[in-house]
Amino acid sequence: MARRLLALAVSATALQAPHAKAPTAPLQATATAPAKTGPTWDDHVAIPEAPDTMVKGVEGNDSMRRKFEQMLREAQNKICSAVEELDGEGTFRQDVWERENGGGGISRVMAGGKVWEKAGCSLSVVYGSMPQEALASATERGVDRAKGMEPGERVPFFACGLSSVMHPRNPMAPTMHFNYRYFETDGGVWWFGGGTDITPAYLFEEDMAHFHGTYKDICDKHDPEYYAKFKKWADDYFLIKHRGETRGLGGIFFDDQNNKSPDEHYAFSKECVNAVTDAYLPIVAKRKDAPFTEQEKEWQLMRRGRYVEFNLVYDRGTVFGLKTGGRIESILMSLPETARWEYDHTPAEGSREAEILKCFKTPREWV
Amino acid sequence: MARRLLALAVSATALQAPHAKAPTAPLQATATAPAKTGPTWDDHVAIPEAPDTMVKGVEGNDSMRRKFEQMLREAQNKICSAVEELDGEGTFRQDVWERENGGGGISRVMAGGKVWEKAGCSLSVVYGSMPQEALASATERGVDRAKGMEPGERVPFFACGLSSVMHPRNPMAPTMHFNYRYFETDGGVWWFGGGTDITPAYLFEEDMAHFHGTYKDICDKHDPEYYAKFKKWADDYFLIKHRGETRGLGGIFFDDQNNKSPDEHYAFSKECVNAVTDAYLPIVAKRKDAPFTEQEKEWQLMRRGRYVEFNLVYDRGTVFGLKTGGRIESILMSLPETARWEYDHTPAEGSREAEILKCFKTPREWV
Repeated sequence: MARRLLALAVSATALQAPHAKAPTAPLQATATAPAKTGPTWDDHVAIPEAPDTMVKGVEGNDSMRRKFEQMLREAQNKICSAVEELDGEGTFRQDVWERENGGGGISRVMAGGKVWEKAGCSLSVVYGSMPQEALASATERGVDRAKGMEPGERVPFFACGLSSVMHPRNPMAPTMHFNYRYFETDGGVWWFGGGTDITPAYLFEEDMAHFHGTYKDICDKHDPEYYAKFKKWADDYFLIKHRGETRGLGGIFFDDQNNKSPDEHYAFSKECVNAVTDAYLPIVAKRKDAPFTEQEKEWQLMRRGRYVEFNLVYDRGTVFGLKTGGRIESILMSLPETARWEYDHTPAEGSREAEILKCFKTPREWV
Repeated sequence: MARRLLALAVSATALQAPHAKAPTAPLQATATAPAKTGPTWDDHVAIPEAPDTMVKGVEGNDSMRRKFEQMLREAQNKICSAVEELDGEGTFRQDVWERENGGGGISRVMAGGKVWEKAGCSLSVVYGSMPQEALASATERGVDRAKGMEPGERVPFFACGLSSVMHPRNPMAPTMHFNYRYFETDGGVWWFGGGTDITPAYLFEEDMAHFHGTYKDICDKHDPEYYAKFKKWADDYFLIKHRGETRGLGGIFFDDQNNKSPDEHYAFSKECVNAVTDAYLPIVAKRKDAPFTEQEKEWQLMRRGRYVEFNLVYDRGTVFGLKTGGRIESILMSLPETARWEYDHTPAEGSREAEILKCFKTPREWV
C-alpha cells in the first residue's frame, strides 16, 4: 500500500505538468489578460524553443537532475525521429512551455499519421511539493523520504520524466506506452521509476517474444532479478480490476528504485528508454500494412475502450493529474483517438480475439 | 459532503446490481459448475421471464417497495416500446435475472438501432448492506438514517431503480440519461432520488426549452422550489471537474428526498419517469434525419469522449459499481458505442461547436 501511495505522486509528475497552448494563444491573450499578482502553481507560458535546460538554479552539469533531463531529451528526439520516419507522413507538433515557478516541458503529439492515429511523447520537469503522508508511508521500503522535514510540512520535490503512448491504426500493430522518471526531494532523497509496455489487439507470439526479449536482455545485463520482478510488476500494475483483465501484454514496470548507486539506476533507465525504438518499431513495421477486416478493426477499438477504462479509472498519473488540476490535454494525451464499447461482447470460442483475451485474463511468459 | 457520500451508495444501487448473462449461459454452465456452499452477494441467475415482483417477503401490494417497483416496470415497458417505435428497426434485448439473496433485475439494451447506436433501460432491485459512516454522515440533513442499528453494524437496505442512457447516431439528436430510485433501510428510513438530463452535441435552443420546460412544468405542479433547485443540482452534479465543463445541458437531479410524505415523493418520481418519452422523443424525432458533416460527427464523438470521462471518473454509481465488483456490462451500459479524443481540440471562434461549449462552461437557463 505504502509504495502505491507514493508511486501515485511519482508517476503523476511526468504526466500532470501543465503544458502551454499552441504558441499563438498567449499572444492573443495579452490584450485581455488581467494584471497578475504573482505566479501560481499552474502558471506557464509557451516559449518558441526549448532552452538548454529546464532545471533551475546553478548546478554542475553532471548533477543527476540535469543529466537525466539531458538524457531524456536526447531519447525524445531519437524516438520521435524514428517514429516520423516509419510513419512517412505524420510529424510531431511541438509545444514548449515553462513554468514561472521553475520547470517546464516539451510536448510532442503526432495526430493524423499514416501509421499511427495518435502518438505522443512528452518531457516534463516539475518542481512541486507533496504531503508527507505519501512520503512517510514509503518508509517500509527502508528509506525515510521525508528526511529533513518538519512534521506536517509539505515536501518540496523535483521530478523529470519522459512519457509516451502510441496508438497505430492497423489493428495488427500494437499500442506502446513508456514512462521513465527521476525524482528528488529537497531532503536529498531520490529514486527512479519507469517502464515500457505493449498492448496488442491481436496476438503474434514472435512479436511479444521480441518486445519482452529486448527488455529481458537489458534487465539481465543490469540485475538478474530485474526482468522477473519488473515483468510481474507490469502485469500487476496494468490490471483493469473491474474486468479481471490486463490492459495489454505487459513489459516492465518499476518504481521507487534507489538500492544501488544513482549512476547504476541512471544507466538502466537510459538503456531502457533508448531501447524503445528497437523493442517496438520493428513490430509496427512488420504489421502496419497487414490486411484486416472491419470486425478486426472493431475489436481493436473495443480494446482501446479498455485502454480508456484503465487510464481513467486506475492509472495513478492520470487520476492524480485529473484530480489535482494539471493540464488536461497533456494528461489525456494517452487516450486513443477512437474507442468503442459494445454491450456484453464475448469473442467466439476459438477465435483470435478469444485467444488474446485469455492472455489478458492470465498473464503469460513470453521469453 | 455528507449528502454526497450517501448519494454514492444510493445512486450506485440502480447501476451496480449484477445482471445475468444471456439466457443460454447458465444452461451451458450447469455441466461444469462446482457444488455451491451457499449464495454469495453476487450470485445471480438468468431466468426466462420476469416474475410478478422482485421484492422479497410477504408484503401488502401497496408497500412502497412493491409499488415503486411496479411503477418503474410499467415505465420501462412504456419507454422501451416508444423508443423501439421511433427507431423503427432496433429492438431491446432483455436479460432477466434474480439474485439468490433477493432482488434481481430486468436489463434491456438495444444495439445497432437505426436511430440509436446504443440505448439501455434497466431495472434493478437490490437488497444489500452498507457501512454506517455513509448513512450517519447524512444526519446533517435532519434524518438519522442508521436508526435502530448498533454502532459499527452495517445497515441493511433495499433499493429499486430504473436507469437509462440513450445515444442516438445523428449528431443533431441529443443523448439522454435518467435514473429514478427508491431507498429504504431496515431501520425504517427511506428516501427518493432521481433525475433526467440531456446531452446534445449541437445546440437547438427550442429543444432545450422543450426538454427543460417539460420538467419545469412537472416540478412546478409538485413544489415551486423544485425546478430551480433540481436544475442547479444537475448542473453541479454533471460537471466534468477537470475540464471545467458540464457533461451536457442538464435537466433535473435530486437525491435524499424525504421531507414530504412518501406518496408525494412517489407521485413526483412517477410523473418524472413517465415524462421521459414526452420530454425526449419529440426532439429525437425532429433531429434524427438532419443532415450533418463528417466534422459534425467527429464533434459528437468528442462529446461522447467527455461522456466517458464523466462516467468513469466522477459518476458515483459507475465508480462505486466498478470498485465494488458489480456486473461490469450493466455498469458500463451507459458508455457510448464510440468515442473520440483529439489532442488539444478547440472549436473555431463563432462556430456552432464553440457556441455549445460556452453553455457547457457556464450553465444557462432554458425556460
